[in-house]
Amino acid sequence: MHIDILTLFPEMFSAYLNESILKRAQESGRVTIHLHNIRDYTTDRHHITDLPPFGGGGGMILKPEPIFAAVEAVLGEPLVVNRLHSSSLIPHPSIILLTPQGRLFNQKVAEELAQHERLLLICGRYEGVDERVREHLVTDEISIGDYVLTGGELAAMVVVDAVTRLLPGVLGAEGAAATDSHATGLLEGPHYTRPETFRGWTVPDLLRSGHQGQIEQWRRQQALRRTWHRRPELLLTAPLTEEDKRFLAQLAAGE
Amino acid sequence: MHIDILTLFPEMFSAYLNESILKRAQESGRVTIHLHNIRDYTTDRHHITDLPPFGGGGGMILKPEPIFAAVEAVLGEPLVVNRLHSSSLIPHPSIILLTPQGRLFNQKVAEELAQHERLLLICGRYEGVDERVREHLVTDEISIGDYVLTGGELAAMVVVDAVTRLLPGVLGAEGAAATDSHATGLLEGPHYTRPETFRGWTVPDLLRSGHQGQIEQWRRQQALRRTWHRRPELLLTAPLTEEDKRFLAQLAAGE
Repeated sequence: MHIDILTLFPEMFSAYLNESILKRAQESGRVTIHLHNIRDYTTDRHHITDLPPFGGGGGMILKPEPIFAAVEAVLGEPLVVNRLHSSSLIPHPSIILLTPQGRLFNQKVAEELAQHERLLLICGRYEGVDERVREHLVTDEISIGDYVLTGGELAAMVVVDAVTRLLPGVLGAEGAAATDSHATGLLEGPHYTRPETFRGWTVPDLLRSGHQGQIEQWRRQQALRRTWHRRPELLLTAPLTEEDKRFLAQLAAGE
Repeated sequence: MHIDILTLFPEMFSAYLNESILKRAQESGRVTIHLHNIRDYTTDRHHITDLPPFGGGGGMILKPEPIFAAVEAVLGEPLVVNRLHSSSLIPHPSIILLTPQGRLFNQKVAEELAQHERLLLICGRYEGVDERVREHLVTDEISIGDYVLTGGELAAMVVVDAVTRLLPGVLGAEGAAATDSHATGLLEGPHYTRPETFRGWTVPDLLRSGHQGQIEQWRRQQALRRTWHRRPELLLTAPLTEEDKRFLAQLAAGE
């Protein structure tokens, strides 16, 4: 997969992208990530990227020209005008604006994006991005959650991290993508490692019993229980077996 | 505000914390952020921080001892054993584990955390954290969204960013916290800046009219409209005026 990131702060990414799993994914060639500074695509003397909004109000708005120019330069071709409303001849990569107004990012969206060969992420900043970018340039808008950040940079890192770890071959021994919280649609239950007893608190006997079938059942029930108590709304969409449903019915009955 | 962050990858934070608004907030003394490497609190020769889980299954689990030791060293006092179930004498800072199993972070949680004088954030990694950390050490668990990340580091950066910008004096001219998406409980409507016409697309006349009252009304209606179309569930909790409700009723009726 190839990912282009358009931002006013490319330096923010370096430390994160060069550590741990993302570093290894790049070294092994499973993902390439290019950072592009939107400011490099200004054409005025002062390299202005943002101005106050029409109609007044606080904050600064990112201007459309450098963003259009950056996307077109990175993709190496002028884009079809008003592309959302025309049938494009070439399969464009996803052009994604990170914005609090976007669709909510979740594991399903991460899995969807992991199918693409190429992603282009645009980081909003300040008060927002000129609406014409939204209307005529991007193909998707994503929000990583219902909170306000100073810019889209962290959101882009979140998307890159969540998507990259789903690519074939990226997770080694330290990962276990399939049973992670949200990968199953449920929260994960408890995990324990050594020492067996720490400050008087002991690991549950069952986990040291070697009864793998019972351990699996316990884990599933703990995941259901935690989800029931903390995020019951997730149970509406999680894939559940008949046994899961019986267990939840017991929980609901207070047993 | 003082924030301590416990992580296995302190280097991941440097680039992000040293840019833009977070940099200025630190320089002006409005927030201090200390990074602590959990590995520094191991006592064994090999500095082991993670081991496989009891009961089998993939992944590695963060051991409890270095995390307890790090928190106690950072806070400068041994913690009350089983503190969640005892009434502590000193007002401890919030000890927050970043984990997909936590309560969902949103703007309301950010505002709540911004009231604290001190936060301590613990970044999970790998398959998870030994359950005893959750049961006996932390006072809060936070998830930034329903997706799987390789660790809690990005989540901690998101929390730090969202909380810091709410602190008094942090946002200068470039910010406008009160009308941001999610600060009002709604998505923001469109913004435009110069040029007035870009590739044939023109800024709405009203925004250049100077009729401030009409502009405010238009903006409010655009925010309601966008929220209605993209994230209608937010309307269930957003504070709405009678006029807002009438406008939504019109939208619902398809007018």
